[in-house]
Amino acid sequence: MDQKQESLLDVSEARDFLLNKSSTIGIEEIDLQDALDRIVAEDIFALFDYPSFANSAMDGFAVRSVDVKDAGELNPVLLRVIADIPAGTSTPPILGPGQAARIMTGAMLPPGADAVIPIENTDHFQAESLDRKPEATKVFRSVKPGNFIRPVGQDVKKGQLLLGKGRKLGPAQLGLCSLFGLRRVSTWKKPKIAIISSGDEIIASGDNFVPGKVFDANSLMLKSLVERCGGEALTLGIVPDQKELVQARMDAAVSLGVDLIISSAGVSVGAFDYIGMVVEENGQIDFWKVNMRPGKPLVSGTYQEISYLGLPGNPVSAFIGFLVFIEPMIKKMTGNANLFRDEISVQVKEDIYSDGRQSFLRAVVSEENGIRVGELIGHQGSGNIYSLGQANTLLIIPSGVKSVRSGEEVKAWSLGE
Amino acid sequence: MDQKQESLLDVSEARDFLLNKSSTIGIEEIDLQDALDRIVAEDIFALFDYPSFANSAMDGFAVRSVDVKDAGELNPVLLRVIADIPAGTSTPPILGPGQAARIMTGAMLPPGADAVIPIENTDHFQAESLDRKPEATKVFRSVKPGNFIRPVGQDVKKGQLLLGKGRKLGPAQLGLCSLFGLRRVSTWKKPKIAIISSGDEIIASGDNFVPGKVFDANSLMLKSLVERCGGEALTLGIVPDQKELVQARMDAAVSLGVDLIISSAGVSVGAFDYIGMVVEENGQIDFWKVNMRPGKPLVSGTYQEISYLGLPGNPVSAFIGFLVFIEPMIKKMTGNANLFRDEISVQVKEDIYSDGRQSFLRAVVSEENGIRVGELIGHQGSGNIYSLGQANTLLIIPSGVKSVRSGEEVKAWSLGE
Repeated sequence: MDQKQESLLDVSEARDFLLNKSSTIGIEEIDLQDALDRIVAEDIFALFDYPSFANSAMDGFAVRSVDVKDAGELNPVLLRVIADIPAGTSTPPILGPGQAARIMTGAMLPPGADAVIPIENTDHFQAESLDRKPEATKVFRSVKPGNFIRPVGQDVKKGQLLLGKGRKLGPAQLGLCSLFGLRRVSTWKKPKIAIISSGDEIIASGDNFVPGKVFDANSLMLKSLVERCGGEALTLGIVPDQKELVQARMDAAVSLGVDLIISSAGVSVGAFDYIGMVVEENGQIDFWKVNMRPGKPLVSGTYQEISYLGLPGNPVSAFIGFLVFIEPMIKKMTGNANLFRDEISVQVKEDIYSDGRQSFLRAVVSEENGIRVGELIGHQGSGNIYSLGQANTLLIIPSGVKSVRSGEEVKAWSLGE
Repeated sequence: MDQKQESLLDVSEARDFLLNKSSTIGIEEIDLQDALDRIVAEDIFALFDYPSFANSAMDGFAVRSVDVKDAGELNPVLLRVIADIPAGTSTPPILGPGQAARIMTGAMLPPGADAVIPIENTDHFQAESLDRKPEATKVFRSVKPGNFIRPVGQDVKKGQLLLGKGRKLGPAQLGLCSLFGLRRVSTWKKPKIAIISSGDEIIASGDNFVPGKVFDANSLMLKSLVERCGGEALTLGIVPDQKELVQARMDAAVSLGVDLIISSAGVSVGAFDYIGMVVEENGQIDFWKVNMRPGKPLVSGTYQEISYLGLPGNPVSAFIGFLVFIEPMIKKMTGNANLFRDEISVQVKEDIYSDGRQSFLRAVVSEENGIRVGELIGHQGSGNIYSLGQANTLLIIPSGVKSVRSGEEVKAWSLGE
């Protein structure tokens, strides 16, 4: 047990170790329709130019610019309108001298035309008829070749990289893929993460209240956190403080083919904390603690070749431990190029004291006069999940810092709504 | 058609109008397990104090503080250990004078005890036995009543408000609900949103490439955007530029019992844009355009008593129109107290010119020396979805502003990864 007293890692040492230990699971090809928030596994290139045909940027008339080079407000040029070109036309007719074609936004430019006159620069600005094209049109301005046209390849050239490996497929990226006719996309597989709550004092949230017991907050909280950062969560329930049962639950996780096992509680120095022992006997322990507050007991190990991470039992510590360590691990396992949360700067509204450990403090932050200001919320005891539910930010006090004065700035993570 | 030329609203006028028009759909009770990202519809109160019993904050020994009031490093007090109290014990034995009980973190304090001695302040600090409690313990410090104890109600008092109506149920909030034994929760129903793409030039992403046609980017993009902000999307596909077919598709949306119909394209002044006409004939049009860039053609109306919003066909305009108008509407419909995106401040790295309309420009923003700096990306033509896929931020240029100098600050929305 002496080992438990040693190796107090810094947050960054521990995180680097865990990230080195984490890798992608494999690649799968999925329907684009199912790919929201998945990560691109193979570079996606444009299969064609976009636009793929020269098209009109406006509703108006496709013309030969030379025909209207002398047109003006007081001396319009009259052109004969030989065709309608609605959007979607594949084979517009060829324009000859003195001819125009009525054309809609996005419609293919007819051969012979080299510009478009916007409808407001013609005598058809107030035209109401939707069924019949006009026989002729007066044009009140000149245009240069290319005016009001979107040329081939203006946005993207064939062969250009659209989305590189590691990009997340959000709505805009899915739209981009759709625009290039992609039906399927290669993404990194989602890691399967087993979640175990440990402890004789823990009862399932659906059960009846029992004195001395505590309802299980961590299973659902960790499941939701795993899903939000792109993993697939398998909640394996509550395991009592009995060594054989703990081992059986860990074996169950392995048999389910998971890529990571997470537990909460059972990892401190308490007399009935068996998980660490079970992991050590069936694999190895990397480290037992990290120099942070809250969340110092953090066990990293390997159980029968599956990575294992033991979070503290206090829900706040488990939540913060997840954000600091497990979220980047899952992002790495999903192939995300972006592993870490954005840090924002917050000006504190009160003096804050710390004990020298790197600390993550629950706070409420708002904007005053364009500056983000924050104050601590609730008591910072690690059991206080109520304050975690109210906080919108975690202030990060670096290791070695014992006090921050009111008005100074600290780094922080936004917790969203 | 003259009405189309009138009523050019400001962005904020249009948005206020649309929000006034939007309301929640109704309340439903769902399993807490299914409630991630749902919005609380009825205030949630604590059914009991938390902690619900005085418990130990540490692993150590529960004692009577009076017994150890003179204890110190050089003059320890010896106490007889009469019991083990692991976490989860419901009926610990009563402590008498001179007695202690070994106690684990989170375990119920025995009657008679009024403090806990941390294990490191006893002679059992290096204890290895997990099975048998010691017979006695030497205590090397005094404690005051209440030391190392988490008293009843320290975090939450029975009857206290846990989460108010309008709060979003993220992982921390779900953990909080679980901790209070909640199995089900009242949330606002998810609005059903029909999505229609319009235009003869649009073909489905899975089809073969056809000259003159464009693959449908908007259906999947808008579906993903709807889902991300808490709505349920029903994509009704592509409707050609034929009035009867447009009407039939709108009728189909109504028959599906949707709460909002969104379309893209078909809302400009083009000769084949039927949607506006169909809406007007079967309901009413509120307005046709908004003074913004991109995305000026924005049609608001009502079709057979269902709210309708027509976005422009260009994917970038549709995307920005969604963020500006539809996202807050859906948030309102889901009962979310928080309707609007956070605005961040960005220092621009180049001069930016505008035409006086409120403008939303695609940009890439990064942090340099603790300050967010940004530059425009790609050409700002509204068809350029490639640049939308690369941008991580939308810079917001207010209406009336024609130029922003390099080094000045503008407001912006982060687009996430």
